[in-house]
Amino acid sequence: MTEEQPVSEIPFPLSPQVLAGDTSDVYFLRTHRVMEMEGVNPRVTMEFFPSGDGILCGMKEVLALLGLGQVLPSDGEVWALEEGELFRVKEVALRVIAPYLSFGVYETAILGILAHESGWATAARECVEAAQGVPIVSFGARHVHPTVVGAMEYAAIVGGCVSCSTPVGAQLAGVTPSGTMPHAMMLCFGDTVRATVAFDKHMPPEVPRIVLVDTFHDEPEEALQVAEALRDRLYGVRLDTPGERGGVTPDLVIEARVRLDQAGFQHVKLVVSGGVTPTRIRQFLEVGAPVDSFGVGSYISGARPIDFTADIKEVEGKPVAKRGRIPGIIANPRLHRAI
Amino acid sequence: MTEEQPVSEIPFPLSPQVLAGDTSDVYFLRTHRVMEMEGVNPRVTMEFFPSGDGILCGMKEVLALLGLGQVLPSDGEVWALEEGELFRVKEVALRVIAPYLSFGVYETAILGILAHESGWATAARECVEAAQGVPIVSFGARHVHPTVVGAMEYAAIVGGCVSCSTPVGAQLAGVTPSGTMPHAMMLCFGDTVRATVAFDKHMPPEVPRIVLVDTFHDEPEEALQVAEALRDRLYGVRLDTPGERGGVTPDLVIEARVRLDQAGFQHVKLVVSGGVTPTRIRQFLEVGAPVDSFGVGSYISGARPIDFTADIKEVEGKPVAKRGRIPGIIANPRLHRAI
Amino acid sequence: MTEEQPVSEIPFPLSPQVLAGDTSDVYFLRTHRVMEMEGVNPRVTMEFFPSGDGILCGMKEVLALLGLGQVLPSDGEVWALEEGELFRVKEVALRVIAPYLSFGVYETAILGILAHESGWATAARECVEAAQGVPIVSFGARHVHPTVVGAMEYAAIVGGCVSCSTPVGAQLAGVTPSGTMPHAMMLCFGDTVRATVAFDKHMPPEVPRIVLVDTFHDEPEEALQVAEALRDRLYGVRLDTPGERGGVTPDLVIEARVRLDQAGFQHVKLVVSGGVTPTRIRQFLEVGAPVDSFGVGSYISGARPIDFTADIKEVEGKPVAKRGRIPGIIANPRLHRAI
Amino acid sequence: MTEEQPVSEIPFPLSPQVLAGDTSDVYFLRTHRVMEMEGVNPRVTMEFFPSGDGILCGMKEVLALLGLGQVLPSDGEVWALEEGELFRVKEVALRVIAPYLSFGVYETAILGILAHESGWATAARECVEAAQGVPIVSFGARHVHPTVVGAMEYAAIVGGCVSCSTPVGAQLAGVTPSGTMPHAMMLCFGDTVRATVAFDKHMPPEVPRIVLVDTFHDEPEEALQVAEALRDRLYGVRLDTPGERGGVTPDLVIEARVRLDQAGFQHVKLVVSGGVTPTRIRQFLEVGAPVDSFGVGSYISGARPIDFTADIKEVEGKPVAKRGRIPGIIANPRLHRAI
Amino acid sequence: MTEEQPVSEIPFPLSPQVLAGDTSDVYFLRTHRVMEMEGVNPRVTMEFFPSGDGILCGMKEVLALLGLGQVLPSDGEVWALEEGELFRVKEVALRVIAPYLSFGVYETAILGILAHESGWATAARECVEAAQGVPIVSFGARHVHPTVVGAMEYAAIVGGCVSCSTPVGAQLAGVTPSGTMPHAMMLCFGDTVRATVAFDKHMPPEVPRIVLVDTFHDEPEEALQVAEALRDRLYGVRLDTPGERGGVTPDLVIEARVRLDQAGFQHVKLVVSGGVTPTRIRQFLEVGAPVDSFGVGSYISGARPIDFTADIKEVEGKPVAKRGRIPGIIANPRLHRAI
Amino acid sequence: MTEEQPVSEIPFPLSPQVLAGDTSDVYFLRTHRVMEMEGVNPRVTMEFFPSGDGILCGMKEVLALLGLGQVLPSDGEVWALEEGELFRVKEVALRVIAPYLSFGVYETAILGILAHESGWATAARECVEAAQGVPIVSFGARHVHPTVVGAMEYAAIVGGCVSCSTPVGAQLAGVTPSGTMPHAMMLCFGDTVRATVAFDKHMPPEVPRIVLVDTFHDEPEEALQVAEALRDRLYGVRLDTPGERGGVTPDLVIEARVRLDQAGFQHVKLVVSGGVTPTRIRQFLEVGAPVDSFGVGSYISGARPIDFTADIKEVEGKPVAKRGRIPGIIANPRLHRAI
Repeated sequence: MTEEQPVSEIPFPLSPQVLAGDTSDVYFLRTHRVMEMEGVNPRVTMEFFPSGDGILCGMKEVLALLGLGQVLPSDGEVWALEEGELFRVKEVALRVIAPYLSFGVYETAILGILAHESGWATAARECVEAAQGVPIVSFGARHVHPTVVGAMEYAAIVGGCVSCSTPVGAQLAGVTPSGTMPHAMMLCFGDTVRATVAFDKHMPPEVPRIVLVDTFHDEPEEALQVAEALRDRLYGVRLDTPGERGGVTPDLVIEARVRLDQAGFQHVKLVVSGGVTPTRIRQFLEVGAPVDSFGVGSYISGARPIDFTADIKEVEGKPVAKRGRIPGIIANPRLHRAI
Repeated sequence: MTEEQPVSEIPFPLSPQVLAGDTSDVYFLRTHRVMEMEGVNPRVTMEFFPSGDGILCGMKEVLALLGLGQVLPSDGEVWALEEGELFRVKEVALRVIAPYLSFGVYETAILGILAHESGWATAARECVEAAQGVPIVSFGARHVHPTVVGAMEYAAIVGGCVSCSTPVGAQLAGVTPSGTMPHAMMLCFGDTVRATVAFDKHMPPEVPRIVLVDTFHDEPEEALQVAEALRDRLYGVRLDTPGERGGVTPDLVIEARVRLDQAGFQHVKLVVSGGVTPTRIRQFLEVGAPVDSFGVGSYISGARPIDFTADIKEVEGKPVAKRGRIPGIIANPRLHRAI
Repeated sequence: MTEEQPVSEIPFPLSPQVLAGDTSDVYFLRTHRVMEMEGVNPRVTMEFFPSGDGILCGMKEVLALLGLGQVLPSDGEVWALEEGELFRVKEVALRVIAPYLSFGVYETAILGILAHESGWATAARECVEAAQGVPIVSFGARHVHPTVVGAMEYAAIVGGCVSCSTPVGAQLAGVTPSGTMPHAMMLCFGDTVRATVAFDKHMPPEVPRIVLVDTFHDEPEEALQVAEALRDRLYGVRLDTPGERGGVTPDLVIEARVRLDQAGFQHVKLVVSGGVTPTRIRQFLEVGAPVDSFGVGSYISGARPIDFTADIKEVEGKPVAKRGRIPGIIANPRLHRAI
Repeated sequence: MTEEQPVSEIPFPLSPQVLAGDTSDVYFLRTHRVMEMEGVNPRVTMEFFPSGDGILCGMKEVLALLGLGQVLPSDGEVWALEEGELFRVKEVALRVIAPYLSFGVYETAILGILAHESGWATAARECVEAAQGVPIVSFGARHVHPTVVGAMEYAAIVGGCVSCSTPVGAQLAGVTPSGTMPHAMMLCFGDTVRATVAFDKHMPPEVPRIVLVDTFHDEPEEALQVAEALRDRLYGVRLDTPGERGGVTPDLVIEARVRLDQAGFQHVKLVVSGGVTPTRIRQFLEVGAPVDSFGVGSYISGARPIDFTADIKEVEGKPVAKRGRIPGIIANPRLHRAI
Repeated sequence: MTEEQPVSEIPFPLSPQVLAGDTSDVYFLRTHRVMEMEGVNPRVTMEFFPSGDGILCGMKEVLALLGLGQVLPSDGEVWALEEGELFRVKEVALRVIAPYLSFGVYETAILGILAHESGWATAARECVEAAQGVPIVSFGARHVHPTVVGAMEYAAIVGGCVSCSTPVGAQLAGVTPSGTMPHAMMLCFGDTVRATVAFDKHMPPEVPRIVLVDTFHDEPEEALQVAEALRDRLYGVRLDTPGERGGVTPDLVIEARVRLDQAGFQHVKLVVSGGVTPTRIRQFLEVGAPVDSFGVGSYISGARPIDFTADIKEVEGKPVAKRGRIPGIIANPRLHRAI
Repeated sequence: MTEEQPVSEIPFPLSPQVLAGDTSDVYFLRTHRVMEMEGVNPRVTMEFFPSGDGILCGMKEVLALLGLGQVLPSDGEVWALEEGELFRVKEVALRVIAPYLSFGVYETAILGILAHESGWATAARECVEAAQGVPIVSFGARHVHPTVVGAMEYAAIVGGCVSCSTPVGAQLAGVTPSGTMPHAMMLCFGDTVRATVAFDKHMPPEVPRIVLVDTFHDEPEEALQVAEALRDRLYGVRLDTPGERGGVTPDLVIEARVRLDQAGFQHVKLVVSGGVTPTRIRQFLEVGAPVDSFGVGSYISGARPIDFTADIKEVEGKPVAKRGRIPGIIANPRLHRAI
């Protein structure tokens, strides 16, 4: 895949490892074998609920798994909340009614998908709410293992990000990936303006020209240099001052804006990245720093999962529960029949 | 794969998506194209360093990626710390010297592998150190997306866990997966003793009989019932009291031990799971609770990544750095030549 | 006295030791002798006021003491707030006008009665207010010396408790003592159901059958066993889970309620005891735990006294005061003439 | 009783109410009846242990109760720690081995005596330790109900106080009661010197002349006036400045000492009272304030009881325990055979 | 000058040292020389702004400096806020437009005058606001170097004090200095009443008789003694109890008021001094202590300066700024043309 | 005065206003008049002591005042600690023995000089101690009123600063004033290098060339530009990054050092200013930032005075004291006879 190929709504790729149960807790595999050999396979109702409030994400992937021919039998029922819905702590988000052996080995996978993706989506939503309309882009692929980059970026967009930085995440979410220019490029060219001109020369017109302006000179100075070089073709500049220099401050954004405006570059947008969190977003907005877009990294991609729990609440129609839990289903009128 | 197949040292599976750059930040792909078209491809030295102290994990996977034929050219050099070594904040853990275009697009993947796996390994190590010799098993597969379960469990074992719960993780780490019996099995059988007897009947002898004893009755009571049923064949019992009942307390472990001993079951081991953290482990040990093994879930699997950063520090042998960083390499005598 | 004898409004028993002055600070006895020998005995006004806000208790006992023939002369005057009234810090709660020698030696006793009983009553009131209508029973006799058990339980009922656990307290307060069954009884019988059946057989019908259900088995399990045994004759069960097992949690109450209801025992009430405080009461109510009654121990019986102070404010009608106090009486329209 | 009568070691007065069970929790009375009618009366081992560290007090009174002819049968055994010994949280302080019905109804009384008296003794000990050799006198009778004044003052002396203010407490503890002069006396005489001279005239020589010196004038001024009046017969002065004037400060004590010394009254001792706590005692000592004795009130008399718990640990020689407790006795080599 | 000489509105005395530049940072003197020799002297706009919110003070003195013949040329412009106005953090309080060499060396002096005097005025305002109408007098001359006493007391009055204790401050502010009697006078006379009578005999009638009443006796006692001596000629008494005695407490003020009133001295006012701060003022007012006036010392005179900063924002009409600041003037419609 | 004139040990200039008593609290002037007219003028011993620990400063100025012909008579005695000595809270730092009227009116001035100057010296000492040998220069003239700039800078040097920024302070302390170049100069020249070259051309050789390098470009970049321009004649550069850009960070100092060294400018020193405090000094040193000198502003010049108190302790040889203080002198063997 290259970034230019058309993006469309595609099914979640279901890993053969997951389907084979290799990613399941081994005791589910052992349970499967024992019950099969004993001929025990009751029709059960299993409910899945979260350990905190959040935004539901991963349900599409879970339904894709349960909906495969080889999983639930025809009389299986699945009730679920929708992808992207808010949930409250302990609210039932998913209910599966089927013979236990048909889906029991997937308990680990279902819990993991919902926990991890809901964690990312919820963190993204916190940023989006803090930003009060200023767009947020997911920039955190570098903080997670590449095999979950797609799921993470998909979840960030379910949580409200307008875009993300990787092709795999963008494809899953049906958006165009977003990016500017890295420090490595500036250092290889040895000069920000030279790199910028080359970028402008070779990139297709639909790629916006957003230039990183903190590599060699003071940020407003470098911003003015690239603005002079690209003029109207410059879409924006990105401020990413490292922590060693105090990070990007609201005052720096204000100053860069004024200096660009005074030189006639009112059209150049300001992108802020580097250690952005909901708290810092609020600090920028409170003092009126004119940020046009935030790039958020580890606040989203490093977010803790929101753990989910699965409970068998009925066996052959009879309410049951382990000690500490309420026997029988917990009614939730927000659930809809999904399968 | 089934859990019984022989486990061996296998190479990390390199996902075609990663190799294709689909999980990279798109600006690296664009940089690649621009530099290629401009004929700019300097030999650079890039250094990778962490944002905090920890245990290094993921380096084997990174070296597998860089060592593939199609990546580094023959004159490329790689210097690295060893898998499982301690690192300090900002210490250089990896140095790559090669033409930029040969490996630049993998910056995202390299950073993500090291950050995510080192985060898990470091959290595992904290548990292991708190436990002062009591073995720790990774039980957290249910909190992460199934596609990273293997990497997570591998990292937990690099951090010092003696085993993990999934076949995929166990295979990567070269250990046997570990498990007991789930609540679902007890509820399907409707009786802990009945489930236990069936488990004992069908499981091969090398699987230790560890029975979950909090489903239907008071934990010590249920422990005595299964001990009476399996007697010497019972290896241990697992206490997993839910938070609704106050969780597993040190006093409960002590009481269970005494009641088992008084009934002649001194050989039965006690496994504790449910919300286990280094703080709670220390609380158990401080009052002398006789725990034989801890199962740790989200403290390890939900640990935040330890973010890594990559900096170009030389271009064609000349020291450089972006503003805020020190030009030239940062000497680290602990690095060894890896490629 | 046995618990069955008729309870009536009886006067507070005035201990001969108190009347003899043996419980007074010795300097009052010495002052008495010196003044008598010097012929100094002015008519004084003495005011008593508390060091904090609270519920007045002990005034009946104080008035019984001052009203005895041998104490105040016929022209003595006493003004007081009513038993059970709220008072504010430093508000005058009692004013005595009489020749000093007639009552001076009782200053210690009067202060002690008001301080100790108001402390208990005020703590009881805090529980009652937290419980918003759920009845509170005083269960704290075991935390105080038996010679004050009566006064303590009397004060708890003045503060709003519906009953108390001892015959002596119940008699003073004019209520029926309240109790369930102790762990000692269960352990002597060796079986909760056996003890329950015996209790039911020998107790008169007016004693409600409330069974302690945490001695041998899991609380809901034991609750169902006694409910099956006594069925409609069972009034309630008491949950008293020890701290070693996490104490009684709101979730346990909810679960016990549901399991009893699902088995058809909606009529069985739930009594909660063990470390109950206003804070914990509020935690139960906030999550809707269906508690029918709380037993409160040391929060009430171990409450600190609310210290009182006595000041001479007039001598022979002339305003006086020691340094630091305002000479003359402090008007309080809420006082009424009591003697 | 008058304060002059000879003090001797007398037995604790056992209240008939306590012996009759009227101060017991009613469920013990009911248990007694049920077990008697069922013919259930096993020989049990009951252990009593505290909820915190402290100084044991009340054991003499408990042994007096258990040692009465009508309580334990001849084959009853009692093992106990000594009055005044330190105990640690959960350490067994008392073990009774006897038929349950012989002593079961006294569980409430035994717990209450130990809890309340140990609470007072432990608070007294904290003051004594803070004072590093400066004597402490118990002045807190006015904060507790007069029926427990004796027990409280006895406990204060077990905790290390050198004396107490009431005849009843002094008699129980075998000491001479201690006191100075009250504000009431000064105000009735209208003049501190006049009251002092009268006190000196009428008191027997063994009563030390300690004069309260803050009623009418500045403390050092009034101290000099009474010193001039009594000269060598003056034993000491008491400083009791009220909180409205900032309380007694270390600087006031130092100043009073210097002004008395400069006038030739080096022999006059300084007694400090009013809101004295271990913290304030340490503040006085840290700055070298020359206090000769502290009078402590509500810190001791208002101290919370240290709750005790009683557990049946053997029934007919077989280890038992309710859920949450360890079956069988908890060995404590510090126990000695008391009955 | 004596305190009796007529006070009038006089210009701030401009120290020759300040005018000579001796109090300036030496680099401004060096800059002056270099620019002069290079012939560089652009017309600049310099703005002065504070680092926090406060009350502006010192502007009159700054304008007196800039308005001298030898400083600004005829085409110089000065825009300023008014003395005593509130300012907000970073608000421009002063703008000077003139050739740099005409005023550049005074940057240090202008900043220092505004910072120090605004700091004092702002602290005074906090006291005045806390006092809700009760007058405040500046008593803090003893905490600052005598050469700034005048400026400090002037600022205190700009901040809202009704008077101050020194002739120099009173003259600058156009008020009459205020004072009572010092401890030194009482100790030299050896008797408060004797000193008071002498004071009354020799002071002109317009000096109010306010007597310090804590030197020898208890404050209310000494107050009554001087009231008896001066009767209607006594204006007030000052309470200044030292910290060694707990300082002046609200209760002491109330008690002194009542004792004076009960003796018929309702006309005698109460002045409180000694460690007075806004927090303590509020404590007096909250409990209704009848204070007629507060003397405030180091809270005002020891207040930290509110630092000011000066920025060149235009050079020859062109917006400029150093890095970190916004080029060009910051509009402030509240500024008025001052020169 | 110009900065070049020879500096010598000169007497403190005694302001005529201070000598006339205009800066005294008016009640001392009134006391003087009353005592003179009554013929009361006892020989008194007055002691001066501080409210906290610190470094004594101002004593030279106080002794200059008391030593003038018109103040103390020939039999007056003065005992004092030395300028620059450490003192402890409440330690007597000055004792004057003389007829009261000879010096009483100067109590305000003496207290103010000692309080204010000791406050500054003590703050300076804190910086010096934090800096462990790295020199500190006083840069805070701009935060205080110009009439105390001299006293403040003198005190800073008594506290350990190696130099100060104003001629008046330098002259009082007998040092050479120290300075670099201000932002105003850079902005007037419009270019840092141009201003630097002019400065180098016109300044005498003994003025070290220290250039401010944060006005137009990134600090290391501007540092390299001025180093290229002045080469060996460049003494150092000053980093003063404003708070809007995160202030000077330790990392910036390290980076500037490396970049200068890599370009061959190892001889160029680094001066850090802007919000420097002992805490920040320690942060620089802890990470090894190679600072050659710190400029400290408001931490020293805005320091709170350390209040002093004066007490008459003897009148005609007899120990006296106001209430709350100890009559008679407080021995201090560290005092030496000064007059």
